[in-house]
Amino acid sequence: METFLNPKRTVAELKELRSLTGDDNGAQRVAFTPTWVKAREWFQKKLEVLPVEIHRDAAGNMWFIMRGESERSLLIGGHIDSVPNGGWLDGCLNIVAGIEILRRINAQYHGKPPVTVRLVDWADEEGARFGKSLFGSSACSGNLDMNEARGLVDKQGIKLPDGLKNVGIDFERVKDSGKELKSAAAYIELHIEQGPVLLDLDLPLGAVLGTFGVERHAITFHGQAAHSGSTPMSRRKDAFLAAAKMSSEIYMIAERSGNGVCTIGSCTTKPGIVTSVVEECRITLDQRHLDTATLARMLAEAKDASERFAKEGNVRVSWERLWQIAPRPFNDDLINLCDEAIGETCGQRHRLPSGPLHDAAVVAAAGVPTVMMFVQSLHGISHNKIEDTKEEHLELCVTAFDKLAEKAMKWIQSRET
Amino acid sequence: METFLNPKRTVAELKELRSLTGDDNGAQRVAFTPTWVKAREWFQKKLEVLPVEIHRDAAGNMWFIMRGESERSLLIGGHIDSVPNGGWLDGCLNIVAGIEILRRINAQYHGKPPVTVRLVDWADEEGARFGKSLFGSSACSGNLDMNEARGLVDKQGIKLPDGLKNVGIDFERVKDSGKELKSAAAYIELHIEQGPVLLDLDLPLGAVLGTFGVERHAITFHGQAAHSGSTPMSRRKDAFLAAAKMSSEIYMIAERSGNGVCTIGSCTTKPGIVTSVVEECRITLDQRHLDTATLARMLAEAKDASERFAKEGNVRVSWERLWQIAPRPFNDDLINLCDEAIGETCGQRHRLPSGPLHDAAVVAAAGVPTVMMFVQSLHGISHNKIEDTKEEHLELCVTAFDKLAEKAMKWIQSRET
Repeated sequence: METFLNPKRTVAELKELRSLTGDDNGAQRVAFTPTWVKAREWFQKKLEVLPVEIHRDAAGNMWFIMRGESERSLLIGGHIDSVPNGGWLDGCLNIVAGIEILRRINAQYHGKPPVTVRLVDWADEEGARFGKSLFGSSACSGNLDMNEARGLVDKQGIKLPDGLKNVGIDFERVKDSGKELKSAAAYIELHIEQGPVLLDLDLPLGAVLGTFGVERHAITFHGQAAHSGSTPMSRRKDAFLAAAKMSSEIYMIAERSGNGVCTIGSCTTKPGIVTSVVEECRITLDQRHLDTATLARMLAEAKDASERFAKEGNVRVSWERLWQIAPRPFNDDLINLCDEAIGETCGQRHRLPSGPLHDAAVVAAAGVPTVMMFVQSLHGISHNKIEDTKEEHLELCVTAFDKLAEKAMKWIQSRET
Repeated sequence: METFLNPKRTVAELKELRSLTGDDNGAQRVAFTPTWVKAREWFQKKLEVLPVEIHRDAAGNMWFIMRGESERSLLIGGHIDSVPNGGWLDGCLNIVAGIEILRRINAQYHGKPPVTVRLVDWADEEGARFGKSLFGSSACSGNLDMNEARGLVDKQGIKLPDGLKNVGIDFERVKDSGKELKSAAAYIELHIEQGPVLLDLDLPLGAVLGTFGVERHAITFHGQAAHSGSTPMSRRKDAFLAAAKMSSEIYMIAERSGNGVCTIGSCTTKPGIVTSVVEECRITLDQRHLDTATLARMLAEAKDASERFAKEGNVRVSWERLWQIAPRPFNDDLINLCDEAIGETCGQRHRLPSGPLHDAAVVAAAGVPTVMMFVQSLHGISHNKIEDTKEEHLELCVTAFDKLAEKAMKWIQSRET
């Protein structure tokens, strides 16, 4: 089948999209802006020459459907929107690779694949304007919190429902898009890795195990202010000392967890003056893991440690939950198929979890068997104009992702019988 | 000689001063205010009945001189000014005890002690109005930085020289007060401890070894911001991790130093958000010790540790000096005499350094043999209306301080022969 696939064309088309919608500061395809509309028009023109039905759903997601012998569908999802001054690959890589895969399937199966293939461009994955990511996929998968979304405003004070109205979307009906998933039998998504794991391992591709669950808390240690000159060390109730001990501890918690991560992102001190022992120290803790029970254990270990350090330092500690989300492990069969596709393409395989969220996470949460494939990021960085991937890796990922699409179609067929 | 001394009268007079110059929020004897002037008038009336010469020097310090057989003088120094909403004992304890000691000396030596005794009320020890402490004693001892002082302004924008003019002091001549120290052979000062050392040891009194030298620095660790979800722990350049390690380290540095102290009083993080590894972390470090070489070693150890932690965490570190002052060890003979006086009074003795600065530090810096005596503070706290000392301890301190005065006079005599 490789003879029908032209990965070099995908690289050329990615560059074409970059020229059309980027500037010196990076990609500017922010959802609901004229540049985004222009990107979608460019995209649609590429697909209009193929035998696909095209429509926009109630949440603004664009669907490109190649009917197959079965109604049961393979979904290939991505997003053409970017953050302001974004990278050239985040989101659109999958969409543009999807064009090439549809071309290959069309050529190979003469316009009638064994199962239906649905390419989707999710609306507003980044949430750059209203501060809430995964809008289109959350609406479609039924995960959108309507009350929360109703109250979102952009920097100009425009409410999300009014912003949507301007692009012809009725906010109150966005969940009607859910019917698009009725025939969904598998969902696959290709994305640039937003970290340095594959770079460090010198591997082009990886099969994604799922998206991390997140526990996010503020931890405040309450000690006692005291004069820095007249208070003996043994008498101090030093809130910073207790908080600082958490810093090394979370590295040990992460290590024990297998492949989880923990981050203390901020630290504030009161009174915060050079001549006083710290009375109150507040740190934020972000913990992530792919496994629900392990994530819960990581949180419990952090709480235990904080209480131990508080006791050692004769201070008090209090916790406040800022946010949490459950882990979204992907489908085991599809992970295996993704791994196979990568092995057949590169000879080397690797499985890794995703730290950041993706549309795939909410689709998986809706019960659709899901997997993602990551391609190496050159600087281990995204949401930045320096985001980049070697061209040879881009070509490899199109090849491997196409193999995954084929394997997923066969897998869907095998489950029908 | 005890028969002439009435420590209970000192306690009664301290209460009298509190009623006259305090309110529900504490003592209000801020220098250069009407309440301060009232306190000084009250004080002067107490001494006018004794055979003392009274004058104000060029820096606004009040001198009460009982001429002795020798011109060589024992100086008893303190300050009647307080911070706003201050404690009832800080500063004035010495001054009021000084009245009682002059009464005792007058009675015992019939107005002609073996050496001259000079009681001094230093002007503006606290620096509450212009933000610069030890004004009067610094001017008198030659330590005042005239250029810096000339530029000081209060909250109303009034410059220090203009503020002084209003109370009849010519700023440009304040150092003429230096002649007051010409005959000074010893300086003693009684003060409430501004920490909890004596409280913890359950001791009423302590002999002070000197005032700490101070090294004050800002330490900044420079790492790299990175996504909290996608950056493996082993790849991080976590500025907070390196900075936090300093927290436990300074406790070890302080322990190794003998009786020095180290304080990290503030910590700030950039970008300081829950979803990013900390790129930049700035902490302040305040280190104090009585011995110049030890203080230098404490600083060197902190610098070494910071570089070690930076290296371990793959981050950079930079140091910036904020302030420093040299240690002021007191006179060994006088420390011994102070210790003796305390032992004879209480049966128990203890020597301790002073974390906060005192007028005694600048007098010592001018070459006058100096010692201080501390009395226990009930909450280990000062500069606060809850500052307090048991009445029995106040009585003990008057007795012991009087013994010290007598010993110091004999010591001065012994050095003349």
